[in-house]
Amino acid sequence: MNDDARLQHAAKNHLWMHFTRHGSYAEADVPIITRGEGCYLYDSAGRRYIDGLGGLFTSQLGHGRRDLAEAGAAQATQLEYMPLWSYAHTPALELAERIAGYAPGDLNRVFLTNSGSEAVETAWKLAKQYYRRTGRPGKHKVISRFTAYHGTTHGALSITGIAGLKQDFEPLVPSTAHVANTNAYRAPEITSGALNVTDEASLETFGRWAADQIAHAIEAEGPETVAAVFLEPVQNAGGCFPPPPGYFQRVREICDEYDVLLVSDEVICAFGRLGRMFGAERYGYQPDIITTAKGITSGYAPLGAMIATDALMEPFLEDGAMFGHGYTFGGHPVSAAVALKNLQIFEDEKILEHVQQNEERFRSTLERLKDLSIVGDVRGAGYFYGIELVKDKETRESFSAEESERILYGHVSKQLFAEGLYCRADDRGDPVIQLAPPLIADQQLFEDMEQIIRKVLTEAKAMI
Amino acid sequence: MNDDARLQHAAKNHLWMHFTRHGSYAEADVPIITRGEGCYLYDSAGRRYIDGLGGLFTSQLGHGRRDLAEAGAAQATQLEYMPLWSYAHTPALELAERIAGYAPGDLNRVFLTNSGSEAVETAWKLAKQYYRRTGRPGKHKVISRFTAYHGTTHGALSITGIAGLKQDFEPLVPSTAHVANTNAYRAPEITSGALNVTDEASLETFGRWAADQIAHAIEAEGPETVAAVFLEPVQNAGGCFPPPPGYFQRVREICDEYDVLLVSDEVICAFGRLGRMFGAERYGYQPDIITTAKGITSGYAPLGAMIATDALMEPFLEDGAMFGHGYTFGGHPVSAAVALKNLQIFEDEKILEHVQQNEERFRSTLERLKDLSIVGDVRGAGYFYGIELVKDKETRESFSAEESERILYGHVSKQLFAEGLYCRADDRGDPVIQLAPPLIADQQLFEDMEQIIRKVLTEAKAMI
Repeated sequence: MNDDARLQHAAKNHLWMHFTRHGSYAEADVPIITRGEGCYLYDSAGRRYIDGLGGLFTSQLGHGRRDLAEAGAAQATQLEYMPLWSYAHTPALELAERIAGYAPGDLNRVFLTNSGSEAVETAWKLAKQYYRRTGRPGKHKVISRFTAYHGTTHGALSITGIAGLKQDFEPLVPSTAHVANTNAYRAPEITSGALNVTDEASLETFGRWAADQIAHAIEAEGPETVAAVFLEPVQNAGGCFPPPPGYFQRVREICDEYDVLLVSDEVICAFGRLGRMFGAERYGYQPDIITTAKGITSGYAPLGAMIATDALMEPFLEDGAMFGHGYTFGGHPVSAAVALKNLQIFEDEKILEHVQQNEERFRSTLERLKDLSIVGDVRGAGYFYGIELVKDKETRESFSAEESERILYGHVSKQLFAEGLYCRADDRGDPVIQLAPPLIADQQLFEDMEQIIRKVLTEAKAMI
Repeated sequence: MNDDARLQHAAKNHLWMHFTRHGSYAEADVPIITRGEGCYLYDSAGRRYIDGLGGLFTSQLGHGRRDLAEAGAAQATQLEYMPLWSYAHTPALELAERIAGYAPGDLNRVFLTNSGSEAVETAWKLAKQYYRRTGRPGKHKVISRFTAYHGTTHGALSITGIAGLKQDFEPLVPSTAHVANTNAYRAPEITSGALNVTDEASLETFGRWAADQIAHAIEAEGPETVAAVFLEPVQNAGGCFPPPPGYFQRVREICDEYDVLLVSDEVICAFGRLGRMFGAERYGYQPDIITTAKGITSGYAPLGAMIATDALMEPFLEDGAMFGHGYTFGGHPVSAAVALKNLQIFEDEKILEHVQQNEERFRSTLERLKDLSIVGDVRGAGYFYGIELVKDKETRESFSAEESERILYGHVSKQLFAEGLYCRADDRGDPVIQLAPPLIADQQLFEDMEQIIRKVLTEAKAMI
């Protein structure tokens, strides 16, 4: 067998891919990505693709940077591994200090993990043990939002609000409740016709209503049983729901009133995705915990983090006390060294400023697509957008399951890639195209993405 | 502040370490490891330590290898990141093929993760979805063993059999039951006086008895509700419990009889720790799933894997079917490239053969310690040993909680490190010293470890 045939053989007989319908490759080749450079990916046939998803919301600095590769290799030669179990190592210490410096308020305590799921697991476990150690042992439940994705390990999956991802794995951790998200485009459905978002004032009313659902859920569960609320600054699954003005301020009030921790799940939104180090900063709220991963290394090494306030660590500084949690590879020296270099490049190359200066261009370029009747909504912030597809623009009617399968999965998803744009067509909520290019992307890339999407959606429209 | 002072400041104010009593560093410096070379670690003061734990059962090839560092950097420059979500990349494909080649029987399907916890989560989720997709939707529970550690995310923690690690995080996933482990040294206690292990024949009887506990648990839970049994080839927590002869053969029979999957949790035992690629191979049984991590990269990058049989993937190859699970960084290209190089070195440098040739020397050197009255038992296999400490060698009486705290935590643990041996004094079960040196260790290192342990345990004996 030649190399290509051998790799296809391995793809069909040995590698079990993630969230993948392997059956769809029964007759077709599995696409194999072999190289990356800047905002582009290349496959085994040498074809070039725009990386419209930044890997998977990870590749902030783009692909193929030698300086990040070398930062990892230098650390691996010096100290390639040591656990953080009772001992420390230099890159984890320096990274914890640096992250604490960026994080808002007194979020000064950094627990390093391997992934976003592990960061979310850590946050929930901390919330539970914290309340037990401070005389409120009944507080263990979590409130999160419909259609929100928080990870796939059993704890993180329990917090996730997507029934289709959970039902085959029940029973899960029996301590979660879900409330309305901030999908303003679907406000009438979400509020059972009570609210419609037509202007800034009605958006604010909707945000207040959505935040108040959290208070209602805490009351329904019993405030003495609720430990934390998990929210993304901009919710990803469903297709980029930014918070209405005032939403997080009201959520913070509710969390204070009921003595519940506010966890800002920033696995996607941190490290420049929204033009700030953290999404909480952009929307002006103070979380008790931030969970993060992905962009922390720009994807050059696996790493996640849970960042907590000094107050949350206090009970664990007492003599004999211990947060009973850990991961062998958590805070891996090589991953930590790569993260340090990544964050230094953010400063040296003014990555946040670049996003701030270009995000309106990204938005307005994507908004051109609204002239297509299949495009219902274009929403997001920073370099993080969702384009919702609809069957009828006037009524906002969405696609049936059959249409979604045929048009979104069968055509849009495959054709975007065939036309040279790697991104994601997602139907965990209503059908959306998700875009999150590397943070170094500029106007030319936005234009190229818009042109490809326009072509494919025009074809899709004809299939309805 | 100078560098040392700055790092200590970060250690006390920013880095939240894993499974660490931070209060114990209130007056003392946090030990900071800065460099590794071969079987040795060095701290920030330049002191040298024998790495008696191989990092954390991870560092099969020892520290500071430039070839592994360079393998990572080469991949990072080529393609530093691409998810395995519907797309494949070269290093993951080559690694999956290679692992399938090593794994016993038709364990041909490889799902890559970031950690051991994530591999265990993956195995459980696969077991649940597999039975739901094949007409046995009630099968979702897991049986595992007392004192067994299977990870710290909510699912893996539910499978873990150590109450002290779980109680602050309840309720967990409500679907696990625990049975007797194979601690032959404590057979009389475990069997309520029914059995005592005095020779090979009684060991076999004990093994049969222990395996049958799994059948009893399946019956008690209801066979139509049980999906899987999770077992380590040699159980780590509690201090290295090897399987009695015939144990796994009987477990395999039971799993077949009740249509339950046998998961061999080899996060520690795979990749040479027991002188074979997989522990199942050493003990001659065929699992349905192997979970692994740690030694797969010799710790040079975070990676884990779940390896399943072809039969388990079959329902997910059907048109439209999908195993609904994934991790952003799972099968990270750099981690996969490092694992490939690591496994190539296993072959080039005959690592398995080295362990096979030296393991009896390791055992006999450690067994010299049995002349100390505080040493109750020395047990293990390959390069993986536990030394159980007792108060009274005749009666096998263990230490009280106060004695364990004062002697094991207060003295043995700290003094081993002070004398230049990094290892672990553990009391998740009865007090043990855990040893798992890099697989390149030789007789001189065994001697040096024995001498340090002898000195510290002689002092400890005087404290009883």
